[in-house]
Amino acid sequence: MSLHGTYDSDNIFAKIIRGDMPAVKVFEDDQVLAFMDVFPQSRGHMLVISKTSKARNLLEIAPADLARMLAVAARIGQAQIDGLGAGGFTIVQNNGVGQSVPHLHIHVIPRVAGKPLDFNENKIGDPADIEAVAVKLRAALK
Amino acid sequence: MSLHGTYDSDNIFAKIIRGDMPAVKVFEDDQVLAFMDVFPQSRGHMLVISKTSKARNLLEIAPADLARMLAVAARIGQAQIDGLGAGGFTIVQNNGVGQSVPHLHIHVIPRVAGKPLDFNENKIGDPADIEAVAVKLRAALK
Repeated sequence: MSLHGTYDSDNIFAKIIRGDMPAVKVFEDDQVLAFMDVFPQSRGHMLVISKTSKARNLLEIAPADLARMLAVAARIGQAQIDGLGAGGFTIVQNNGVGQSVPHLHIHVIPRVAGKPLDFNENKIGDPADIEAVAVKLRAALK
Repeated sequence: MSLHGTYDSDNIFAKIIRGDMPAVKVFEDDQVLAFMDVFPQSRGHMLVISKTSKARNLLEIAPADLARMLAVAARIGQAQIDGLGAGGFTIVQNNGVGQSVPHLHIHVIPRVAGKPLDFNENKIGDPADIEAVAVKLRAALK
């Protein structure tokens, strides 16, 4: 959880990028990957990562890499509205504390009006439901 | 809370930018303003806004404006670590739901290891303490 040190190329997102770990992918280009969070804070919760940057946090990321991630995050948010009927979406990005994987990642969390986010809740999602939501999001992105 | 409609130039952040409302400012340049959140989720909670963009949310912001905001947000996070002894920081940015002011703003929230964020808590902060924290953050930014 330190902001110091070096990039750990065995972190779970590095493995997903290499194809050594599975992920329910929704969007991918040559630089950015967006996939379903297996611990969704709400239905449709996604993660956006850079495939090319080894930044662990916001203090390390190059502006161009961050810009590419955020452009995808905005598209994901729009897809959550269009494809899942979300009332809006929240971006969360943890640095050091609250960050379980030391590869910079942007959470894009669909929101339901009147329902607060609860970051204390950390339950693994139902894989079948996550896959079903991913199908809707992929369609909405097109 | 809608993602639709037009920019409301009477929103509280527009008033702060115009100088019609007070704010405890920590950083300001010609394009970006960073000030203390009066409802801190943790001690040192700050907001970063664009002074020039009328974007209400991530779907409307121009990439160049967003990049400037994020560069300041990263500097603020570093100042929270350096000046307040935070273990890290969390970026939160709400779109439509969970967003009380319809002018795009980035929350930069200092984190203490082991202590979860609680977004359900929404208590106004002690003005004297907020000012004292701002003094430390301004010094750390230099």
